[in-house]
Amino acid sequence: MSSSLVIQLLLQLATAYAKNTLFATSNKNPNNQNPIDEPIDDSPDVNLPDDNNLEDVNPVAEEIFSSWALFIVLFLLCSALWSSYYLQQKRIKAIHETVLSIFYGMVIGLVIRISPGHYIQDAVKFNSSYFFNILLPPIILNSGYELHQANFFRNIGSILIFAIPGTFISAIVVGIILFIYTKLGIESIHMSFVDALAVGATLSATDPVTILSIFNSYKVDPKLYTIIFGESLLNDAICIVMFETCQKFHGKHAGISSVFEGISLFLVTFTISTLIGLVIGILIALILKHSHIRRYPQIETCLVLLFAYESYFFSNGCHMSGIVSLLFCGITMKHYAYYNMSRRTQIATKYIFQLLAQLSENFIFIYLGLSLFTEVELVFKPLLIIVTFVCICVARWAAVFPLSRFINWFSRNRKQARGLTSLSVIQDEIPYNYQMMQFWAGLRGAVGVALAMGLTGESKSALLATVLIVVVLTVILFGGTTAGMLEMLNIKTGCIDDNVSDDEFDIEMPPVKSRNNLNTSSSKYFDQTQTRSRGASEDATYENSGASLIEMTSNQQQSQQQNSDHPMSAPMNNRSASGLISEIFSVDEHAKWFTNFDENVLKPVLLDTFPSETPRNENDTS
Amino acid sequence: MSSSLVIQLLLQLATAYAKNTLFATSNKNPNNQNPIDEPIDDSPDVNLPDDNNLEDVNPVAEEIFSSWALFIVLFLLCSALWSSYYLQQKRIKAIHETVLSIFYGMVIGLVIRISPGHYIQDAVKFNSSYFFNILLPPIILNSGYELHQANFFRNIGSILIFAIPGTFISAIVVGIILFIYTKLGIESIHMSFVDALAVGATLSATDPVTILSIFNSYKVDPKLYTIIFGESLLNDAICIVMFETCQKFHGKHAGISSVFEGISLFLVTFTISTLIGLVIGILIALILKHSHIRRYPQIETCLVLLFAYESYFFSNGCHMSGIVSLLFCGITMKHYAYYNMSRRTQIATKYIFQLLAQLSENFIFIYLGLSLFTEVELVFKPLLIIVTFVCICVARWAAVFPLSRFINWFSRNRKQARGLTSLSVIQDEIPYNYQMMQFWAGLRGAVGVALAMGLTGESKSALLATVLIVVVLTVILFGGTTAGMLEMLNIKTGCIDDNVSDDEFDIEMPPVKSRNNLNTSSSKYFDQTQTRSRGASEDATYENSGASLIEMTSNQQQSQQQNSDHPMSAPMNNRSASGLISEIFSVDEHAKWFTNFDENVLKPVLLDTFPSETPRNENDTS
Repeated sequence: MSSSLVIQLLLQLATAYAKNTLFATSNKNPNNQNPIDEPIDDSPDVNLPDDNNLEDVNPVAEEIFSSWALFIVLFLLCSALWSSYYLQQKRIKAIHETVLSIFYGMVIGLVIRISPGHYIQDAVKFNSSYFFNILLPPIILNSGYELHQANFFRNIGSILIFAIPGTFISAIVVGIILFIYTKLGIESIHMSFVDALAVGATLSATDPVTILSIFNSYKVDPKLYTIIFGESLLNDAICIVMFETCQKFHGKHAGISSVFEGISLFLVTFTISTLIGLVIGILIALILKHSHIRRYPQIETCLVLLFAYESYFFSNGCHMSGIVSLLFCGITMKHYAYYNMSRRTQIATKYIFQLLAQLSENFIFIYLGLSLFTEVELVFKPLLIIVTFVCICVARWAAVFPLSRFINWFSRNRKQARGLTSLSVIQDEIPYNYQMMQFWAGLRGAVGVALAMGLTGESKSALLATVLIVVVLTVILFGGTTAGMLEMLNIKTGCIDDNVSDDEFDIEMPPVKSRNNLNTSSSKYFDQTQTRSRGASEDATYENSGASLIEMTSNQQQSQQQNSDHPMSAPMNNRSASGLISEIFSVDEHAKWFTNFDENVLKPVLLDTFPSETPRNENDTS
Repeated sequence: MSSSLVIQLLLQLATAYAKNTLFATSNKNPNNQNPIDEPIDDSPDVNLPDDNNLEDVNPVAEEIFSSWALFIVLFLLCSALWSSYYLQQKRIKAIHETVLSIFYGMVIGLVIRISPGHYIQDAVKFNSSYFFNILLPPIILNSGYELHQANFFRNIGSILIFAIPGTFISAIVVGIILFIYTKLGIESIHMSFVDALAVGATLSATDPVTILSIFNSYKVDPKLYTIIFGESLLNDAICIVMFETCQKFHGKHAGISSVFEGISLFLVTFTISTLIGLVIGILIALILKHSHIRRYPQIETCLVLLFAYESYFFSNGCHMSGIVSLLFCGITMKHYAYYNMSRRTQIATKYIFQLLAQLSENFIFIYLGLSLFTEVELVFKPLLIIVTFVCICVARWAAVFPLSRFINWFSRNRKQARGLTSLSVIQDEIPYNYQMMQFWAGLRGAVGVALAMGLTGESKSALLATVLIVVVLTVILFGGTTAGMLEMLNIKTGCIDDNVSDDEFDIEMPPVKSRNNLNTSSSKYFDQTQTRSRGASEDATYENSGASLIEMTSNQQQSQQQNSDHPMSAPMNNRSASGLISEIFSVDEHAKWFTNFDENVLKPVLLDTFPSETPRNENDTS
C-alpha cells in the first residue's frame, strides 16, 4: 500500500507542476525573460479549460499535458507489472494483480478527478475506439497464436458446445432474469428484452487470463485446461458478436422474426469473419512459402504482424467481427505460416505478440479503474449488483451442467457404436469434478466491461457500475478460491513435463508457473505432444544438441516437416503418443478426417516442406 | 508500378464501400429489415461531413471509417516493406525504399483527396502529437540500444565535434543564406532571422537510416561507420533542441542577449535531458540487479520497455528534450541493464525495439507522402528549393571540412605530446577520403520533415514543401551515388567479420547486408570486439558450443561478468584486442579515464556480477 501513497504524491506533484505551467502560460508577463520557466510564448491567453472549452488550450501546453497523461499511464503500467512480479515472488494467491491494476487505476483516477483542470482527465478517459483498435487486437492475436492446436482440435467438440450454445444459454438466462427483475420495478431501471440480452451477452464473456494463470501454476490436467482455455477464448468472440447483434436491434420492435433474424445475423457474421481470418492466415503461409522473405527476418516479422492486423481491420471495416477473424487468423498462422518462417521470426513474433498482449491486458484493467473516476458518474445499486451476481452464477450453472451431460451422453453413444463399451463405462467425457471446475472457472473479465462501455440507453451508468463490480467480485471470489477447489475436487495437477520447449530461453522460469508464464509453459507441454504426434523426431533432434542451436532448430523443423509430409509416418506417429489418449477420451471422426486432409493436402500445399528447395541452415546468398 | 494500380483500385473500392455505408446510414429506411446492409439503427440523420462538421458522423460509422483508415495505413506499410524486400532481393540500389514509401503515400493520399467525403482524409492527416509521442520514440530508443558503445566512445570526440559545433555551423549557414535570400525579395517570403535559423536547424538533421543501409551492405570501415552513425544520431537530437529553442524565440525581438540566452537554454536543456536519460537507465540496471524479476522474463521485458518510454515522456513533460533523454537512456540500458537481464529479455527487447523502429521508420515516410495531399496545400517555389538545396550542400561543406581539419590538428598535437610522432605523420585522424564521405553522407531524413511540420508563420506551406522536396532530393542524389563514391574515394570495405554474434538467429541473413539488417550486422561486428575487450572469454565459451545453447549463453554471460569484474583481467584484455587500434587511431585520455571508472566503479555497482548471488542457469524456485 505504500506504493499507492508514492503514486499519489507523485501524481499530485505532476499535476501541480502541469497546472503551474498552464497558469504561468495564461498569466505570462511579456517582460519575463526566464527561458526555462516560461517557454510558451505564442499562446493566446488561456483560461483554465473546462469540459466544453478544450480548444482554448494552446498546442504547446497540450503537448506537455499529453506527455504527462502518457507518463501517468505508463507509470501505472509499471506499478501493475511490478505488483504482479511481487505477488508471484511472494506466492500470494489470495489477491490477483487484476484487482490491483483496477485499484491503482482507481486511486490515480480519483487523484486526477479531484485535482483542478480537465486536460489530463480528458486524456485518460476511456475511449472505446482505442480499446477496440489498439488494446483488444494484441490479446486476441496472442491467444490465437499461443493456442495449442493438437489439444484444441482434439477437444473442439466440447469447446464449441460450451462456447456457442453455452454462451447463448448463459446470455439468455441472465437476460431473462434481469428483464424480469427490472419489470418488478424495485429499481428505477427500465430496459427492453433486447437490451437485457445485451447485458446478458456482456456478462457471459469469461476471462481467459486470470483463471488460467492459476491453472498453469498448478499444471492442471491438459484436457481440462484446453477445454476451459478454448471456451473462454471463443466465448469472448461470441459474446462480442452477440452483443453487437443485440445492439443492432436496440430500440427496434423485436418480434419472433427478430429472433431468427438475430440468429441468422449472428451465424453469418461468425462464418464470414472466420473465413476472413482463415483466408488471411493461409495467404500469409503462401506468401512466406513462395517468397524468399525469410532471408530478411526483420521485414518478415513486420509483415506477419501487419497482415494479422489487416485481418482485424478489414473484417471490422466490412461490418464483420474483427475479433473472430483475428483469432482464426492467429490460429491459422500458427498452424501453417509459423513453419514457413525463419527461426528468428518465429521467436520474434512469439515475444512481440506476448509483450503486446500483456501490456494490453494490464492496461485494460488500469484504464477501467481510471475511467471509474474520469468517465461518467457511475450509479451503484447494491440490490441490482447482488441480483446480477446470483444471475451469472445461475446462468453458468445452467450452461455448464446440462451441456456436460449432453457431451457425456453423446460421447458414450459414439463409443458404444465403435465397440469401446468397456472403456466408456469407466470414463465420462467430462466427469463431475471437471464440470464443477468448469463452473468455477466462469470468471468475468475485461471484455465484459469493455462491452458494457458500449451499452446505450438511460440506465447505462447503473449497468456499467454493476458489470464492473460483478467482474471484480468474480475475480476475487472465484479466482481466490480456485486453488482450494482444485484440491477439493481432486483434479489431477502437476501434469506438465518441461523437457521439450519451442522456446530456448525459458530456463529462468521457476517450476511453479504463473500468469505471465501462462502461454509459454502451456506451449511447452503442447509442443512436446505436438512434436510426438507430428513425427517422433525428437530423439534424432535432441541427439544433435551437441551441435549448435541453429543446426538443431533447423534439423528439428526439417525433420518435423519431412515426417509430417511423409504419408506413412504421420498416422503411425499420431497413434504412438497421443493416439491412445485421444482414442480413450474423444473419438472424433470429424477431427480425424480433418487431420488427414490437413496432413495430406493442406500442409504439402501450404508448408515449405521441400528441404531441397530452400534449406534453412544454408547461408544462401542469391 | 502495377502494385500502385492495385492499391488505387483497392482504395477506390474501399472508399466507395465506406461511402455507401455512410449514405445507406443517412438514407435509412425504418422498414428496411436487411440486417447486414443496415446495421446502424440509432444514428441521427447524417449529412456527408465536411471539414468543419465532423461531430455529425455517428459513432458506428466513425468506427467503420477508422477501421478503413487503419486498414489503408497498414496496407501501405505492407507494400513499403514488400518493396523493401523486393529491392533487396533484386539488389536494386538506384532507388531507395524511402522514396518508394513516400511515393506510395502520395498515390494513396491523392486517391483519398479526390474521393468524396472527408473522414478518412482527416483520419490520415499528419498529426504532430502522433509523430512525437508514437512514431519517433521507438526509432530513437532502438538507435540508442543498438549503438555500439566501444566504438562510439572510442570516437566520441570526433562524433561530438561533428554533432554539436557541426550542426550549429550547418544551421547558422543555412539560416544566414536563407535569411539573405528572403531579404532579396525574389520570392514573397518574409521571415525573421530566428525563423530562418529554425529552418536551418530543420535542414541540418542528417538521416541515420538511408546512408547506413548502404554502408552496411558494403561493410564499410567501422571507424567511418561509427562516426557517421554517431553523428547522425546525436545530430537529430540536437536539431530538435535547436529547433525548439528557436521556436521559443519566434516572434520575439531577438538581440545579442538572445543569442546567449538561446545557447544557454540549449545547453541546459541538453544537459538535463541527458541526465534524465542516464539516471533512468541506471535505475533500470539497479532494479534488475537488486530484484529477482529476471525469473519472470515477460514482466521484465515489459518493464524495460516501459521505463525507457517513461524517460521520454517525463523529459517532455518537464519541458526538456525527450529525444535526448531516450537516446541516452537506451545507451545506458544497453551498457549496464542489458547484462542484468535474462537471456530471453535480451533477445526480446532487441527484437521488439527493432520491430517498432522499423515500422515507425517506414510509417513516417508513408505518413509524409500521405500528408502531402491530405494536409495543407503546399506551395512549391522552384527557385527557393534550388537555393535551399545549394544551401545545405554549402552548410555541410562548411561544417565537415573545417572541423575535420581541427580534429586532425588536435589529434596530431596530442599524439606528438605522447611521443607517437612516427605514427601520426603517417595517419590523419580523419583522412581526406573520410571527410569527403562524411560530406556525402549528409542526407536529410524524416526528422527534418517532422520538424518542418512544426514551423509556424505565414510562409509555412512554402517552407514545408521546400524541406520535403530537399529531403527527397538528397535521398535520391546522395543515397543513389554513395556506392560509387565509396569506390571512387577508395574507402576500405568488407571489414566486418560475422563469426561471433549476440544474436543466434541471424544465420538466414545473406552476406550482403542491407538496411534492415543494419543494426544486427553492426552489432555482430561490435559484439565481437566487445567480447574481446571485456574479457577474452570467447574461446572458453565457444568450446562449450557442444553443450546446449542455454548453458552456453549463461556461461558466456557469467564469464563476461566475471572477467569484467576481475580487477586484473579487465585492463589486460582491454589492451589485447582493441587496445592497440585505439592507441593508433584515437588516444583519448578522457575516454580511458571513463573506461577505468566504468570498469572499476560503475560496473561492479550496477551489474549483477556475483555468480554466487543468482546463478542464471539454475532453475531456482524461491
